Parts: sequence; structure tokens; C-alpha cells
Amino acid sequence: MKDVAARAGVGLKTVSRVVNGEAGVSTDTERRVNEAITALGFRRNDSARVLRKGSTSSVGLVLEDLADPFYSPLSRAVEEVARAHGALLINGSSAEDPERERELVLALCARRVDGLVIVPASGDHRYLEPEMAAGVATVFVDRPPGRIEADLVLSDNFTGAREGVAHLIAHGHRRIGFIGDQPRIHTAGERLRGYRAAMAEAGLAVADSWVAPGGTDPQRVRADAARMLDGTEGTEPVTAFFSGNNRVTVALVRELAAPVRRERAVALVGFDDFELADLLSPAVTVVAQDPADLGRNAAELLFRRLDGADDEPRRVSRPTRLIARGSGELPPSL
Amino acid sequence: MKDVAARAGVGLKTVSRVVNGEAGVSTDTERRVNEAITALGFRRNDSARVLRKGSTSSVGLVLEDLADPFYSPLSRAVEEVARAHGALLINGSSAEDPERERELVLALCARRVDGLVIVPASGDHRYLEPEMAAGVATVFVDRPPGRIEADLVLSDNFTGAREGVAHLIAHGHRRIGFIGDQPRIHTAGERLRGYRAAMAEAGLAVADSWVAPGGTDPQRVRADAARMLDGTEGTEPVTAFFSGNNRVTVALVRELAAPVRRERAVALVGFDDFELADLLSPAVTVVAQDPADLGRNAAELLFRRLDGADDEPRRVSRPTRLIARGSGELPPSL
Repeated sequence: MKDVAARAGVGLKTVSRVVNGEAGVSTDTERRVNEAITALGFRRNDSARVLRKGSTSSVGLVLEDLADPFYSPLSRAVEEVARAHGALLINGSSAEDPERERELVLALCARRVDGLVIVPASGDHRYLEPEMAAGVATVFVDRPPGRIEADLVLSDNFTGAREGVAHLIAHGHRRIGFIGDQPRIHTAGERLRGYRAAMAEAGLAVADSWVAPGGTDPQRVRADAARMLDGTEGTEPVTAFFSGNNRVTVALVRELAAPVRRERAVALVGFDDFELADLLSPAVTVVAQDPADLGRNAAELLFRRLDGADDEPRRVSRPTRLIARGSGELPPSL
Repeated sequence: MKDVAARAGVGLKTVSRVVNGEAGVSTDTERRVNEAITALGFRRNDSARVLRKGSTSSVGLVLEDLADPFYSPLSRAVEEVARAHGALLINGSSAEDPERERELVLALCARRVDGLVIVPASGDHRYLEPEMAAGVATVFVDRPPGRIEADLVLSDNFTGAREGVAHLIAHGHRRIGFIGDQPRIHTAGERLRGYRAAMAEAGLAVADSWVAPGGTDPQRVRADAARMLDGTEGTEPVTAFFSGNNRVTVALVRELAAPVRRERAVALVGFDDFELADLLSPAVTVVAQDPADLGRNAAELLFRRLDGADDEPRRVSRPTRLIARGSGELPPSL
């Protein structure tokens, strides 16, 4: 720590402030301290680990929203692997806010977690470099990190979405609406890309009004769906939907079940499986990810790093699976 | 800290070990240190708060299972209140294991959370007394603490269950099966008590084979349901079910939707609402708790304590709401 202070040209107290994420340090000073830490490979966590020898080790999981059922099995799988390694899991959610992600990650580091699994909200993770240099193992899952290299576990979102849309096309659909999440989210962008690829491969033009990225707010989803179902000036109504994630799918199912909509059967393939999808009428065809498998893979990469692996960052891609249940096999009704 | 060491007759290092939950301290020594801490009202967290002035404050939430959708809105509500108070929320799940709950709670305390909201798995929370004496605000939610007094927010499980079962009786049912969670869990016990009260008030005897407490494992639930639906030696088949929580309800819905079961309409009222309950056929009648409201109330009690309230522990009871959707209004089919 003295070496870091000397190299950065600051006092010990300032180094301590930067390391603990405390206020009262200028951006420039913070940068100099972090550079010195990186240069010297200061391993704060190793000493922290020694200091609390005997107490339980822990890993942190930062994800987008604990209330999204997609993340529940992911979180539980990370927890199971952590437990098998004698570590506790501590969770936090970023609410899709980059600043909040940063705050949570640094708060967990200051609370001496040994490693982190992150579903990122931010597009720039350079703030993590000093922590990683200081020995905090870090694995990203579901979405890639921004502007840094780190272990990463992703579903093959592009291929899954392309397959789902091709399935609708194979059942006769030509006018297919896409309702997805914010396009700045990596997974949402990849799924939209898959939709466009499947349409292009079938030689089908995509009307602008058939593509509705946005939030997962049910009102928004239902309004966009209603617009596409009714058709707009110069554009015919869609006969099928591909939805970008489970929150969107559930909102769409509600819109399609509304009394005014029931007279016309509209096909639907959703990205992500969800509980009770198989018991709805029609049962919902999905492109399923395996969130438990993503979580398990990420946690295993994490403990591999904690056990000392220092090779190049790895990138693991996991396949998706189309589950035909009924809603995706309905023929066009118009 | 010196006073604590002197009073307990141990060294400073030992006090530090006990406070930080580290290994290498005998049970007897631990007890003496904790008694000294309680006697002297040692406020470790106040000093911790001063030490990390400028860093973000945090509260911890320990619940049973992050993957149970009942806890998602509860967790999100606690997080929202925490955020409004400028604090981060850190979560952990006990997996219904008392030892794991204790480990997590103490790990969070050692990581300097300012307060805790706990859905307890344990029946004995005396291990928390030194932490509470040291200034960690603690609120229990969904289930009461064991052998200590603390702020508490509960749904009125007994009244809700009694009302749900009375609803089935009002629709003509006389043979009603109860499938619930482990009876050692407070909520499960209260709901079973509500079932028995409603049956007794209607003058209906309860056959032993109609009551099946146990885990929420779907196989177990379906096997018990099948047994009650088929009837056992000397006991007629049930015509309705009251289920003890959302995990049990979903498993029951699957059993009732199985091809072999469909020929007979069986009534169902479930404790806890769940996503898509209204879109199933029949839509599922539930006794709904408001998990977000429970979480909000618990978090508000917590921040009230953190703001300095030191009056007697409070107990808040929240009402449940019967939502009739179809499955609970089916007449007896036998």
C-alpha cells in the first residue's frame, strides 16, 4: 500500500479511500491511484482473505432484476455452486441502471467479496479494472462486459431468435411482428438481429411498424401489439408475433386473450420459457434458454479463477432450444 | 471494546473474533463476550458507520428462496424503500436451512450492513442478540422470530386460510383436501389452523388422509393429491383442494390438468396469487397476500429504527384478499 501511495504521489489515506470507494477523492487522483494499483498488482483481497481467516468467504451476484423469473434459476444455480465451494452468495440488483450497477459492484468489493458474477447493465466496465487487478475474480453472464475483457457466458441469442422466427415462417406466416426489450441491451439487439436474419433469409421484407423495441412495461407491449394487430396506414396487420423475452411474452399473451382479440387466432413464439406456458390455451411455443445452466457455467468459471487459473478470458456460448407447444404452430388467420 | 474485553475477561483479539463471527472461539467464551456486549450496549456499527463515512450504506435481506416468485416483489419493495433512503440492498437466501440463515446473517453483519430484514428459517434467533445490541436494526417479515423480540410484519394467514376454505364450503364442498408446506414453518401452521377452523365451524369432520403437509416438491404434492382424489380405504375422494402456497398450487394445477384427471372438475382455492392464474382454465381462485406491501412495511419499520426509534418492537398484521376466478366456485362433482 505504501508502494501504491509513493507511485501515485498521494498519502496512504487517499489510497485507502480509493480502494474502499469512499468520497472526497478527485477523479484525477483516483485514476492515478488505480494506475499505480494496476502497475503494482496490489492484491488487497489476498490480504483481506488472510485477515478474516476462518470467516466465511463470499461471492457477489449483480443482476438486472431479482423479480424477473428468468434470473431466479440463474441466481439459485450460482448459489448452489458457491455453496459447494463453501462460499455464501450475496445478491444485488441494478434495475437496469449503469450507475447503480457500479455502485453495487463497488459496495460488494468494499465488503470483501472474493469474486463477482455480473449481468451487466453498464456498457463500460473500466471501473472494475482496479478491483480485478486487486484480485477480485469477475465473470459476466447473459450479456458481455463493456470495454474490458473478462470471462463470459452467453446464450446464443441470435441463432435462437432466428430459429424461432423461421419456425413461424415455416408455418406460413409472412407478416410477423417483433416486440422486444431496449435495443441497447445486448441480448435484445441480438434477438432483433436474429429476427431480421430469418426474415431476410425467407426473402420477406420487414415493415418499420412491425418492429417495436422498448421497455417490458405491459402497457407499452400491449399498445404496440394492438397497433400491429389492427394494421396501420399502408401496412397490413401481422398474423404472428415473435417476442423478445418472457416479460414481453406474458404481456402479449394477455393482449391476445382479451375478449376483443379472441375472434382471431394469432401465432406467437416467445424468447425464454416461463412457468405455466404449457398450461395456457394455446400452450405457448418458446425458444428456451437454460438460465440455471448459464448460472452454473458462470459460477464454475468464477471458482476456476478463484482457484488460481490465470489464462486468457474465456467465452462460453450456450445453445437455446425451440419448444413447440401450439401457439407457434397456428396458421395465418388473415 | 476494551470494556467488553475486561468485562468478559478475554483479550481484545477474542472480542474482535466474536464480533466478526470468526472461528477459534469456544462457545462459552463467545457467550461471555456477547453478554458483555449486551450489558455495555457496545455499538460497533456506529463506529463502523463513522469509519466508512462517505461510502454507501446498505441493508441486508435474508429470505428463504430467491427463486420463489412470492419473494420477488417483496425483495423489490424492500429495495425500493432502501433506495429512497440512499441505501443499497444486499440479498441472500437461506434455502429454508436454519444454520445457513445464521451463517448468512452473521456474514452480512460482518460486512457492515446497517440493518436486516429477515424471512426466518430458524426457530431460535438468540444468535442475533449481540448484533442487535451492537446496533444492527432488525425486522422480521412473513414469519415471526424465534425466542427474541423484534419488529415483525405478517399476513393474517389464519384468517385468510379460514376464508378460503369457507368459500369452498359455501359452494357445496364437504370433503376438502389440504396440501401445505412443512408445518414447522409458521405460515404453513397458521394456514392449516385456518383450514381446520373453517371445517369445524361448518361442522365438518376432517379425515386424516385429507391433510398432507410436507415440502413443495411437485412430485410429493401430485402424489398426495392423487391419493386424495382416488380416495383411500374407508375415506371417500375429496371434491376440492385448499393449497397452502403458490408452489403447491402450481403443482396441483398440473395434476388437475393431467389427461387422466380432466374428466372430473375438482375445485381449488390456493393461498398466494401467482402470475397467469387468471389465464388458466379454469382461472384459479386464490387468497392473495400482497408481498410488495409486506416488504414495504418491513423496510419502513427498518428505516424507522435506523432513524433512531427505540420504542417497543412492533407487530404489523396485513389482511389477505380472496379473489374468485372460477376454480374455487366449481360445485362438487361427486
